[in-house]
Amino acid sequence: MKIALAQLNYHIGNFDSNTAKIIDTLNTARQNGADLVVFAELCISGYPARDFLEFREFIGLCEQSAQKIAAACTDVACIIGIPTPNKKKSKGGKDLHNSAYFIADGEVKYVVNKALLPNYDVFDEYRYFEPETEFTCVDYKGHRIALTICEDLWNTIENPLYISRPMDVLIEQKPDVMINIAASPFAYNHDEERIAILSDNAKRYNLPLFYVNQVGAQTEIIFDGGSLVFDNKGEMVDEMPYFKEVLNYYNLNDDAIITPEQPVTLMRQRQTDIEQIHQGLLLGIRDYFYKSGFKQAILGLSGGIDSAVVCALAAEALGAQNVMAVLLPSKYSTGHSITDAEDLVRNLGCKSELVEIKSITDAFETALQPQFEGLPFNIAEENLQARSRAVVLMAMCNKFGYILLNTSNKSEAAVGYGTLYGDMCGGISVLGDVYKTQVYQLANYINRNGEIIPQNSIVKPPSAELRPDQKDSDSLPDYDTLDTILMEYVENRLSSAEIIALGYDEATVRRVLKLVNTAEHKRYQTPPILRVSPKAFGMGRRMPIVGKYLS
Amino acid sequence: MKIALAQLNYHIGNFDSNTAKIIDTLNTARQNGADLVVFAELCISGYPARDFLEFREFIGLCEQSAQKIAAACTDVACIIGIPTPNKKKSKGGKDLHNSAYFIADGEVKYVVNKALLPNYDVFDEYRYFEPETEFTCVDYKGHRIALTICEDLWNTIENPLYISRPMDVLIEQKPDVMINIAASPFAYNHDEERIAILSDNAKRYNLPLFYVNQVGAQTEIIFDGGSLVFDNKGEMVDEMPYFKEVLNYYNLNDDAIITPEQPVTLMRQRQTDIEQIHQGLLLGIRDYFYKSGFKQAILGLSGGIDSAVVCALAAEALGAQNVMAVLLPSKYSTGHSITDAEDLVRNLGCKSELVEIKSITDAFETALQPQFEGLPFNIAEENLQARSRAVVLMAMCNKFGYILLNTSNKSEAAVGYGTLYGDMCGGISVLGDVYKTQVYQLANYINRNGEIIPQNSIVKPPSAELRPDQKDSDSLPDYDTLDTILMEYVENRLSSAEIIALGYDEATVRRVLKLVNTAEHKRYQTPPILRVSPKAFGMGRRMPIVGKYLS
Repeated sequence: MKIALAQLNYHIGNFDSNTAKIIDTLNTARQNGADLVVFAELCISGYPARDFLEFREFIGLCEQSAQKIAAACTDVACIIGIPTPNKKKSKGGKDLHNSAYFIADGEVKYVVNKALLPNYDVFDEYRYFEPETEFTCVDYKGHRIALTICEDLWNTIENPLYISRPMDVLIEQKPDVMINIAASPFAYNHDEERIAILSDNAKRYNLPLFYVNQVGAQTEIIFDGGSLVFDNKGEMVDEMPYFKEVLNYYNLNDDAIITPEQPVTLMRQRQTDIEQIHQGLLLGIRDYFYKSGFKQAILGLSGGIDSAVVCALAAEALGAQNVMAVLLPSKYSTGHSITDAEDLVRNLGCKSELVEIKSITDAFETALQPQFEGLPFNIAEENLQARSRAVVLMAMCNKFGYILLNTSNKSEAAVGYGTLYGDMCGGISVLGDVYKTQVYQLANYINRNGEIIPQNSIVKPPSAELRPDQKDSDSLPDYDTLDTILMEYVENRLSSAEIIALGYDEATVRRVLKLVNTAEHKRYQTPPILRVSPKAFGMGRRMPIVGKYLS
Repeated sequence: MKIALAQLNYHIGNFDSNTAKIIDTLNTARQNGADLVVFAELCISGYPARDFLEFREFIGLCEQSAQKIAAACTDVACIIGIPTPNKKKSKGGKDLHNSAYFIADGEVKYVVNKALLPNYDVFDEYRYFEPETEFTCVDYKGHRIALTICEDLWNTIENPLYISRPMDVLIEQKPDVMINIAASPFAYNHDEERIAILSDNAKRYNLPLFYVNQVGAQTEIIFDGGSLVFDNKGEMVDEMPYFKEVLNYYNLNDDAIITPEQPVTLMRQRQTDIEQIHQGLLLGIRDYFYKSGFKQAILGLSGGIDSAVVCALAAEALGAQNVMAVLLPSKYSTGHSITDAEDLVRNLGCKSELVEIKSITDAFETALQPQFEGLPFNIAEENLQARSRAVVLMAMCNKFGYILLNTSNKSEAAVGYGTLYGDMCGGISVLGDVYKTQVYQLANYINRNGEIIPQNSIVKPPSAELRPDQKDSDSLPDYDTLDTILMEYVENRLSSAEIIALGYDEATVRRVLKLVNTAEHKRYQTPPILRVSPKAFGMGRRMPIVGKYLS
């Protein structure tokens, strides 16, 4: 049996595009002699379709797409992922299942429903889907396939998040191969975990395993592909490329031996975290613009490292000609801010404009003079600068159809070191899941073949430049310390006592954790953040705003 | 057995305050001869504690609070709600249970875990909690109590969201009374549904039922109290007050006869939707400020109805002396805008300031002149006005410690008729779940005893006044039509075809639904919205941003 693994980029709710892509791939695979083409979890609707799943019409359109695909599915079989109505709804439970259709001879031969529904971090599957409790293998061309959906293989011995394991039931039916369709999002450490867990499954059940993941970004969630093939010893037969669409072919014989049709690179060098983050962010930016129908990005370029890195990433993702960098100096901007920004614009070849904001902040201060009379300069005047910049950038968006890129990093977003409705604005946050120390690594990586980001933007002490001689280090611990404390709190959910026990200064730890919690109201109103870590701010981290714990 | 029902207002993560309040109530009830005091679901932590529940320290602090309460719980028993570790975690499942402790003689005698975990709309319980599958009654003072938690009684015959029903197991153990502890949020139509479902339970199981709800707001979610007592025929014995803290006493004899100790008002006149919304919003505003430690609100007063209603509500909730109304006329503001706003300020007795924004928008237009040269006035200049106002208001927040109240209504929020980082700013949105037609009703209700909101603000055609002679009706259908279409789409999740079939103009319906979907990116960045309907924007409605369906 020749199996084609289709690692494709879908678009949520874009039935025409998703269906056409699936049918095209089916036709290509048939021409290449494939017996079975495997598509990813929920490829029909895109993932996550969220509350669109609550619309009966949306579910109906999914089924219509499936029927179109079925009609095109002759002389070849396919597996697609689709939300389907729960047929036992009258006995209780959610309205839907997260399903796989096994289609052959122009019709749906088997419907397999997902049993283990992730409902943590960015996942909300139990919001929509009823878990399946009965399992049957798929028989096709002399093979018996144990077909499961993503998390169904993830109930590990070490961290059993569920009380059942579908493969423990399916294995009793003596399948000779496992196929798993997935929508498994990217995080810089997730590929290794994924490989380990899938390999364990292949070994435990003594079966070859074909695993197809989605690729492409859906707003903040990035799917990295990296579909996998294992033999029945758990040895990796192939690891498909990351961050791009691929259609690969594998022959499976009756002795469970797998022969790839294209060259494979086994045991390749793992990419570094930063290499992965770089590719993930490029895909995230590209798909955000492409899928929302926009082409042109705008951002404020301060001369600092964050906006420089965002500008370089945007230029690489969208083309320099589609990036507008706006220099917005105030009276507190230092001379090198301008020259560093200008150097970057020259290195990238992107568009730029310079808009002085002094006359604007002066106008605000004059208008507010009766109210502010006699009161000292404080955060009100600091934020006026950041907010004036945002208004200028948004005016250019409204005039020319740009999308504003947010340039805040994860360290700032964590401690609330940013101005709401000021530098926290944007359509999408590029670095909101990248700690400041990682931003430096990313800058150096971007410069790996020669200086793109000016060295001065990398080496100068970070500053918001909202008052004279301001430095980030005036009010924050050094970023090495800050980022480690944040990692222990945000990613690892340690308490202040536990972090202090790791050797950090008590006052610093308490202050940082309090800053994180009191900034919830700011983060609530910030743009979606491209997720590259196992715990990003946004949908994956849901905190009370008016709460007392640690604030 | 004398049962005290404690309908109290908790604060998420404020262990000191919640624990002290519970112990004080326990002492009062003991002095009044109560045998058992019933507190609400998750009263120890507050509800919803969201991802605080993922911190081991947080769960430990919950248990410490429970131990303090247990130590104070002598010569009286109590039921409290608390998150507890899942003791069968090694066999799989979530880390926690949503539990009730039955405490007597200074110790925890029974632990009851919730089985039916709401995971729809604003609820995320399966994110944290493992559902219970085994059930045991509580024996106390000759009574056998079927103790359940909120949703455990909500698996109705008509809409069975779950595949099991805990009471069907418990009833086999021959209990003589049901107690249900809840955290059931307010929506203007939810009280009647709650009464019907609980009455059905009492009747079906032929048992008296004591039901204790939380009261008080936690950011956007408002708990309305309205705790209930039913006899074993399903007849209501008492309906406790809405939107306030109450401690009531009931004697239950061996024949299941319930005697309230305080006067009850049976079959009282139901409140209208608008009366309920009015009280809910007052509580929502009050608790948002009180629980976040702020006293003073600020808002932009346009002379229109939305900001007038928000101003009146804020003055009633916080005291007029704690409300600052800022008039921010531009060159497109009409004369009556100022006088209507001034009339309202006078009627309420709140503080006010006037800040002209013309010099500010002029400064922006001058600074952007090189970029905008030769291009016609459009939405860029319109939004400059809204954003300049927001910057002024936020500067006053930063200078004086105000919280900005957002004044957008649900109709505007739905169709994206508002300026991101402009009039869509604020710490909390007061009317974001109140349709424009309901805002008019609310205004008339506020004026029920005499004019507070100037009649002119109510009767004049709505306008954003961002260009000459602008009217909402230039770009939107009339609000009666718009709100009905929105209700069918947002609340009832009908498709465009289904709404058109109700008799609405096809082009209008398609346009409105497209506006709703393309405004997702704006709503993502708006403040939390006080939830008063069964489907509010925010946590309870989760939509893809970059999706294609209907956009």
